[in-house]
Amino acid sequence: MSRVVKLAVIPGDGIGPEVVAEAVKVLDAVTASSDVSFEKTPFSLGAGRFLETGDTLTDDDLAAIAEHDAILLGAVGGVPGDPRLKDANIERGLLLKLRFELDHYVNLRPSKLYPGATGPLADPGEIDFVVVREGTEGPYVGNGGSIRRGTAHEVANETSVNTAYGVERVVRYAFALAGRRRQKLTLVHKTNVLVHAGGMYKRIVDAVASEFPEVAVDYLHVDAATIFLVTNPGRFDVIVTDNLFGDILTDLAGAVTGGIGLAASGNINPDGAFPSMFEPVHGSAPDIAGSQKADPTAAILSVALLLDHLGLTDESARVTRAVEDDIANRDGQRTTAQIGDAIAARVQA
Amino acid sequence: MSRVVKLAVIPGDGIGPEVVAEAVKVLDAVTASSDVSFEKTPFSLGAGRFLETGDTLTDDDLAAIAEHDAILLGAVGGVPGDPRLKDANIERGLLLKLRFELDHYVNLRPSKLYPGATGPLADPGEIDFVVVREGTEGPYVGNGGSIRRGTAHEVANETSVNTAYGVERVVRYAFALAGRRRQKLTLVHKTNVLVHAGGMYKRIVDAVASEFPEVAVDYLHVDAATIFLVTNPGRFDVIVTDNLFGDILTDLAGAVTGGIGLAASGNINPDGAFPSMFEPVHGSAPDIAGSQKADPTAAILSVALLLDHLGLTDESARVTRAVEDDIANRDGQRTTAQIGDAIAARVQA
Ligand SMILES: CC(C)[C@H](C(=O)O)[C@@H](O)C(=O)O
Ligand SMILES: CC(C)[C@H](C(=O)O)[C@@H](O)C(=O)O
Repeated sequence: MSRVVKLAVIPGDGIGPEVVAEAVKVLDAVTASSDVSFEKTPFSLGAGRFLETGDTLTDDDLAAIAEHDAILLGAVGGVPGDPRLKDANIERGLLLKLRFELDHYVNLRPSKLYPGATGPLADPGEIDFVVVREGTEGPYVGNGGSIRRGTAHEVANETSVNTAYGVERVVRYAFALAGRRRQKLTLVHKTNVLVHAGGMYKRIVDAVASEFPEVAVDYLHVDAATIFLVTNPGRFDVIVTDNLFGDILTDLAGAVTGGIGLAASGNINPDGAFPSMFEPVHGSAPDIAGSQKADPTAAILSVALLLDHLGLTDESARVTRAVEDDIANRDGQRTTAQIGDAIAARVQA
Repeated sequence: MSRVVKLAVIPGDGIGPEVVAEAVKVLDAVTASSDVSFEKTPFSLGAGRFLETGDTLTDDDLAAIAEHDAILLGAVGGVPGDPRLKDANIERGLLLKLRFELDHYVNLRPSKLYPGATGPLADPGEIDFVVVREGTEGPYVGNGGSIRRGTAHEVANETSVNTAYGVERVVRYAFALAGRRRQKLTLVHKTNVLVHAGGMYKRIVDAVASEFPEVAVDYLHVDAATIFLVTNPGRFDVIVTDNLFGDILTDLAGAVTGGIGLAASGNINPDGAFPSMFEPVHGSAPDIAGSQKADPTAAILSVALLLDHLGLTDESARVTRAVEDDIANRDGQRTTAQIGDAIAARVQA
């Protein structure tokens, strides 16, 4: 009884295609002998496609992608300052559009310092936490505008929109996750300044907490949270936070755990109404594109998250273990493909 | 010909009074033999005052404070979770109200790793940059609200308001500062998501840049900026950014340069229409209040910023040098007062 998973693959721009090639290599390796197979459909999307056709993400693209069981994405975005992209916002028009349209309300970003990985901290201790970043609300909704643009009297506003519906579902997910981990949940916000949005987050966390008596809850302002991420990252288990704070904290967390080249993420629709999307936290890094300098590990760990999401927990664990072994035994420079080969070989060993 | 400076002193809550006592001690020491004297007026404001009288900052308080030449503030804020403060927002009603009413549009936050200070980074290199944080706009304006509060249908919005007027003046200040330093300015924002506010910041920085051809300009998204703060903080000279990003970056910067116990700040009205206010970046830390455990260095360095702002550059330099010498020679535990005594003695030596 074999299972077929329909996977949409969006290599994207810059180093995206290189790291996705290795991620797919590892995916193929881990499923080679199993009774699940992945039917992959490539989608040509990103700055490259925009420059060719003027399209960012059409309704047809979106409908076609939504037909799949899951999505693997590399990275999107052109060369910064490219004048031909001046009026394109690939991030908003493609990446964020996918997250919003496919209702990826959980942006799951694990941070783990693997043995052998070196970060910038002198004494990092054990780091193993997950940021549950809200993915469909907050300052990311695109509800901004300006008047008198380009004049001395311009006013530019950005509105963060937050709903009890949206916050409760992501908070509930974070509590359940904390319950399966070390039973600690930290809400990060800025309740003393963003009193309405922050206040609602706080009230909802307090309310849901009563259903998870085994989970210890605390709260940190976002500024204080960045301090702890560098002075005592071991204090965190699960962090739940809004879309913007989650963006900031997870880049910092990636740096602290050995670099953004290792940080994986899942844009998850837990209800299963839409396909979830897995991508490295890093960007398209056009400056090193095509040079085989990119580390595909973040993309490969995103495959582990994807497998786990699909219930393929054994396969997921094998990929994670292979990555762990690879990181523990790194020395010398390797190309993107060499890292992928090494991890694929470990997966099959 | 002696000059009298009218100084409003707001010790505040928690460790505020302790660190302000040492800051005043050092101020007195450095001006003991000079022809400038400080006439100090204490203002009892903060959670303590609120609990006694129900007032946070009355119009009379504000008018009286505005009569002064400068303000020295310790820290404000009660014990987190104190039910009697449930409906008080001391931060918004007092600290932010002062910043907004006194038009403190430059929130100046230097970050320097002093020899002898130890931060969490294994290999920090030289760190010496200044964050110029906008102080009167952005997500801090308090333009938020909610509907159906407390129900499953609640919507809570927060609007970030930004004006060309407000951005241009702080950007201009940052360029001038960079011109007097290492001629490097980094704009930090999130232009790919907050396209209206971020786009305006970017356009204004680009426009003002032409008047400062000697200053090299670059741009970082806020998430990427946090990465560089821990992997290569030496790359920064002057950072200009909005109110919220500045809040986040300066706590992280404080941690990276040896802890928030050393981080000073100035809330500056460069036009001189209102008194500027100097305060440590840290909060009131009620958990250690009264125990003489707080480090008064941040408050003392805030006095150095205050002196510099008043044009008392020699006095300012003497305080900074005394602090540098103290940090370079620290060993063993000292009380708040012992640190203040040591720095005051160095100032007079
Ligand atoms: C590219 C950008 C829009 C995106 C975000 O801000 O979410 C990225 O930084 C991320 O964290 O995935
Ligand atoms: C207390 C709080 C309102 C304040 C801020 O967010 O500005 C503080 O964090 C700071 O940085 O001075």
